[in-house]
Amino acid sequence: MQVSVLDGPGKLRVEERPVPTPGPGEVLVRISSVGVCGSDTHYYREGRIGPYVVEEPLVLGHEPSGEIVELGPGVSSRLVGQRVSLEPGIPDPLSAESLAGHYNLDPAVRFFATPPVDGVFAEYVVHPAAFCHPVPDHVSDDAAALLEPLSVALAARSAGDVGLGSKVLVAGAGPIGLLISQVCRLAGAAVTLTDVREERLELGPRYGAAQTFTAAEMPASGDAYPGGGYDVFIDATGAEPAILSGPQRLAPRGRCVLVGMGADSIALPVPLVQGRELTITGTFRYANTWPTAVELAAQGLVDLDGLVTSHHTLKDVEGALTAGAKPGALKAVVRP
Amino acid sequence: MQVSVLDGPGKLRVEERPVPTPGPGEVLVRISSVGVCGSDTHYYREGRIGPYVVEEPLVLGHEPSGEIVELGPGVSSRLVGQRVSLEPGIPDPLSAESLAGHYNLDPAVRFFATPPVDGVFAEYVVHPAAFCHPVPDHVSDDAAALLEPLSVALAARSAGDVGLGSKVLVAGAGPIGLLISQVCRLAGAAVTLTDVREERLELGPRYGAAQTFTAAEMPASGDAYPGGGYDVFIDATGAEPAILSGPQRLAPRGRCVLVGMGADSIALPVPLVQGRELTITGTFRYANTWPTAVELAAQGLVDLDGLVTSHHTLKDVEGALTAGAKPGALKAVVRP
Amino acid sequence: MQVSVLDGPGKLRVEERPVPTPGPGEVLVRISSVGVCGSDTHYYREGRIGPYVVEEPLVLGHEPSGEIVELGPGVSSRLVGQRVSLEPGIPDPLSAESLAGHYNLDPAVRFFATPPVDGVFAEYVVHPAAFCHPVPDHVSDDAAALLEPLSVALAARSAGDVGLGSKVLVAGAGPIGLLISQVCRLAGAAVTLTDVREERLELGPRYGAAQTFTAAEMPASGDAYPGGGYDVFIDATGAEPAILSGPQRLAPRGRCVLVGMGADSIALPVPLVQGRELTITGTFRYANTWPTAVELAAQGLVDLDGLVTSHHTLKDVEGALTAGAKPGALKAVVRP
Amino acid sequence: MQVSVLDGPGKLRVEERPVPTPGPGEVLVRISSVGVCGSDTHYYREGRIGPYVVEEPLVLGHEPSGEIVELGPGVSSRLVGQRVSLEPGIPDPLSAESLAGHYNLDPAVRFFATPPVDGVFAEYVVHPAAFCHPVPDHVSDDAAALLEPLSVALAARSAGDVGLGSKVLVAGAGPIGLLISQVCRLAGAAVTLTDVREERLELGPRYGAAQTFTAAEMPASGDAYPGGGYDVFIDATGAEPAILSGPQRLAPRGRCVLVGMGADSIALPVPLVQGRELTITGTFRYANTWPTAVELAAQGLVDLDGLVTSHHTLKDVEGALTAGAKPGALKAVVRP
Repeated sequence: MQVSVLDGPGKLRVEERPVPTPGPGEVLVRISSVGVCGSDTHYYREGRIGPYVVEEPLVLGHEPSGEIVELGPGVSSRLVGQRVSLEPGIPDPLSAESLAGHYNLDPAVRFFATPPVDGVFAEYVVHPAAFCHPVPDHVSDDAAALLEPLSVALAARSAGDVGLGSKVLVAGAGPIGLLISQVCRLAGAAVTLTDVREERLELGPRYGAAQTFTAAEMPASGDAYPGGGYDVFIDATGAEPAILSGPQRLAPRGRCVLVGMGADSIALPVPLVQGRELTITGTFRYANTWPTAVELAAQGLVDLDGLVTSHHTLKDVEGALTAGAKPGALKAVVRP
Repeated sequence: MQVSVLDGPGKLRVEERPVPTPGPGEVLVRISSVGVCGSDTHYYREGRIGPYVVEEPLVLGHEPSGEIVELGPGVSSRLVGQRVSLEPGIPDPLSAESLAGHYNLDPAVRFFATPPVDGVFAEYVVHPAAFCHPVPDHVSDDAAALLEPLSVALAARSAGDVGLGSKVLVAGAGPIGLLISQVCRLAGAAVTLTDVREERLELGPRYGAAQTFTAAEMPASGDAYPGGGYDVFIDATGAEPAILSGPQRLAPRGRCVLVGMGADSIALPVPLVQGRELTITGTFRYANTWPTAVELAAQGLVDLDGLVTSHHTLKDVEGALTAGAKPGALKAVVRP
Repeated sequence: MQVSVLDGPGKLRVEERPVPTPGPGEVLVRISSVGVCGSDTHYYREGRIGPYVVEEPLVLGHEPSGEIVELGPGVSSRLVGQRVSLEPGIPDPLSAESLAGHYNLDPAVRFFATPPVDGVFAEYVVHPAAFCHPVPDHVSDDAAALLEPLSVALAARSAGDVGLGSKVLVAGAGPIGLLISQVCRLAGAAVTLTDVREERLELGPRYGAAQTFTAAEMPASGDAYPGGGYDVFIDATGAEPAILSGPQRLAPRGRCVLVGMGADSIALPVPLVQGRELTITGTFRYANTWPTAVELAAQGLVDLDGLVTSHHTLKDVEGALTAGAKPGALKAVVRP
Repeated sequence: MQVSVLDGPGKLRVEERPVPTPGPGEVLVRISSVGVCGSDTHYYREGRIGPYVVEEPLVLGHEPSGEIVELGPGVSSRLVGQRVSLEPGIPDPLSAESLAGHYNLDPAVRFFATPPVDGVFAEYVVHPAAFCHPVPDHVSDDAAALLEPLSVALAARSAGDVGLGSKVLVAGAGPIGLLISQVCRLAGAAVTLTDVREERLELGPRYGAAQTFTAAEMPASGDAYPGGGYDVFIDATGAEPAILSGPQRLAPRGRCVLVGMGADSIALPVPLVQGRELTITGTFRYANTWPTAVELAAQGLVDLDGLVTSHHTLKDVEGALTAGAKPGALKAVVRP
């Protein structure tokens, strides 16, 4: 099979590898679509993300969908031919964190495209059947792939305990911010979406935002809505100025959820956190989100295909990884 | 009656004022004991705490106990002669925050000794009956007064969701830190207590700490307990170095509670918060804590009298406000 | 002013009473619309509901909207001319339950049309300003009145912790069941609605139900959805057969919420509750629901006017109280 | 090795079987102590418990401790010679319930001594390493075995959300009820313990009960404590009269936890559940309790050895299974 391999910053090539064989509890999946994530681009450009360094050739890509083509020993819960969305992290299911329901926090988790674990810019991959989630036929290959960023959004909603009647402020109108906006709206919240770039806010209403503001035009914080009084603030930018604009806009007992990556530290205003008894938390990927993600996609409640702005082959993974720089680009998809 | 009045930084005097008359729903209380808090000392020295400025003569003191000597109109829930512990904040009980059970966060709350509201370094005070909590006779006047700092500790425990089997790290072995340690132990937690000063740790075991360390001797953070793996970190220092030492010692899904005041901001490590899905929150006083505080004191489960290291009269409020500087001092009490 | 008075079972008359004067913190409201509830009809027919007996002449009606026409002393939070929805229960806001955020459970609560407290089948009523919730002009008088049953539905959703992705089974397609269905859908749930009468299910899709079944046609309970695997079951019938059909259809950790009144006791299957760790709870009215209820109505997300099937004057309260027996009747409204 | 086999009601025999070989991830454990549970006795007497029928020869016993004597392939987390307490249920760790943190509710769980899965009245058993929990040397073999009933108690506490300041009523002073009392006390609750037999209450104070009453002498329910006003009621009897005495004694928002097995159904008083917004739930075994159970035993906070009233060999399993009928008997232990 053909595989796209990263040898170092900016160095991609396609190589031939043997099609792997599924072991016990695993299935072989022929990859259909793989969404490109900012972390893929970051590894491509820098060769590392914080402590994760690309020291050996690495296959990128961690948002795959595909079709099961072979069952490993003992797999009775899946069928050959089943279209699936792949959950990219494989925990030790018997670790303390997994047994407690937080398998995303298992220190031993193996996650696609995180060194030294290969990702899925490839024609085939072997994966545990339990993490290959069936999708109905009216959910497209691209949408099935994008259940991964949708899961990030679902985890953010859950961490913020966003529900019916919540007033939510979302910073960042990229794919993750738009999906967070959509998911919060579906949960009954009134969503305000901000971004530094006005053009990114155009899709806001389509993705559930009741109102949108550029960061510069956002009303001053205070008691009056929409400047203040939010129940929840979710950051999908990772930029310190955006993050710091949030807590002051929260109502007493408000919750601040940090999803975007980038800032090493932020200057948290302690008296504000104390005086309003705010809560700040961060999310690390997701756990137990696929059932809801599949359901939302199956019901047509979330527009995943609308996020895709370009398609690429395995030979053009470089194009996929650099597509984000183009105006209007949201989500590139590789179709091996 | 005699009242101790603060005219400005370092300027205290005793003046005569008429004994107030209880209005509807209120009672008149003759003050027995008033604990001295760091905020009292801060107002005395600086004339302000952040945005709260002493612009008019102010009566300090907000940790009172006393005896009901007169009932206002409509009070049927209390008796003359009843010994009581006074909860010092009076909210608008019909505000949105009060109706939601967070009356401490009502913006209109009036709190003893917070400008321009007078405190209780006085012989008598009028207070709503509902916030004068009866105490049994075997609870001393001093202990009844110290249900206020005990309430701060109870709120910290609650914010940290500390319970049976929790591993808790408490920073700061002053009165609040010791009471937090005690309360967490009573809730079934294993408590590690730290302070920069070794001598303050001596009372640790008496107040529930299973182990104590000076900040310098605290084992390096890591997976191994007691250096790491805590479920909850509670800061009772307000000092940035102490606060920042906490999150890295937390297990996945760990909770960090900021109780101590002082730091304007801290450099929150975002990747750590995200990677372990930590939660950071702050407490602002307390709500609905007195019933449990009274019960713990009545059962003799918490040693409040043991915290009192000096007593003072109304004429020596200055001595009470400066007693904390002496070696071994923990809690000064004014007995009007 | 004119008031409709119940003298005993089936005995209604209109009498003249003086317009009341608002006291401190109160406002005088001219009533616009009053929804009729099953409990009003029950008092009319039987003269009692369980322990609540009509021993003195009683004014029925507890779902009112109106317009503020006079402010009592000290009211600065409301304006004359403001259209409002009245929350019908007045608690002691300083009771332990109120301070804990559960003011509906305060034993001293005074509730419209619950003996011996008069209701609002009248031209005017005096009510605390804090419980007169402003509504925008595009919310009709009837809709403002029906924020009360909407609040019952919001409390049911909250008790069942219904949220994004929940699979919810609702029994009973009367006004409360329809509103529960609507509210659960707005919170992101997939709703199945059942009733013994097929014609009552017609409005199901309009009120958020993804699927409807008569009780007789409901698929057998089991692992397969829609027969089983629900996360939440909410009963809005109060009938034992309906209630008992719910728990067996719940998934592990499922929640059962009892809203409908009628059954004195039900034969709870203990091994089922244990084996699946089910939770059963009941709701008593509501607390802190009006802000969300107003918001949902203001956004046009819930169709309250569509529930009203007849209008009546004060002289025809009897017609209003008996309208429910007619085919297709859902909600009668009295306009004084 | 020798194994005690149940052939049918009352028919026990010892047979020779080959010592099993640990598979991947498993260890071989030489059994030290096995606690006898009421369910063992029930299978012995009746040959069934509800739907679980002994159709093939069955080994009873599900509360074992032992020593690891051999490691299966791939086990690096355990050492030969390690003393362990065995968690008796083995779930599919990749099931939806397991991944959500509720592995006890996985329908495919295999549990010792539940037909057709053999138990541990045997000299050796093979078990997954992850469910063999190391215990320190100062915890006795018997105590290590009794971490299983301690886990039942921990799950009950958790289900009831019992914590600091909770007022808890526990019905049933057998081993489970005593451990629930102990665990609730360790969590900071005030515990009242009841039983129909006065002699069973003697151990109450030793196991954390602040007060004990026979069911007949229990004060009438009402607002006054100890008759009423409990936050939590935990039933460890399974007897309908005991269960039904609980809810009426609960304060508003009180929680009722059904642990004891026996009643097929109870006549749940719906108006009471609604009027006080009570919650009723049941527990099914436990999940994620061993870390805390080991910790409590290691700290000497819970007296497990004090529950053991007789010891038996493999040849006297019959004696162990019938020991409960003797006066003063609490817990029989088999030492193979």
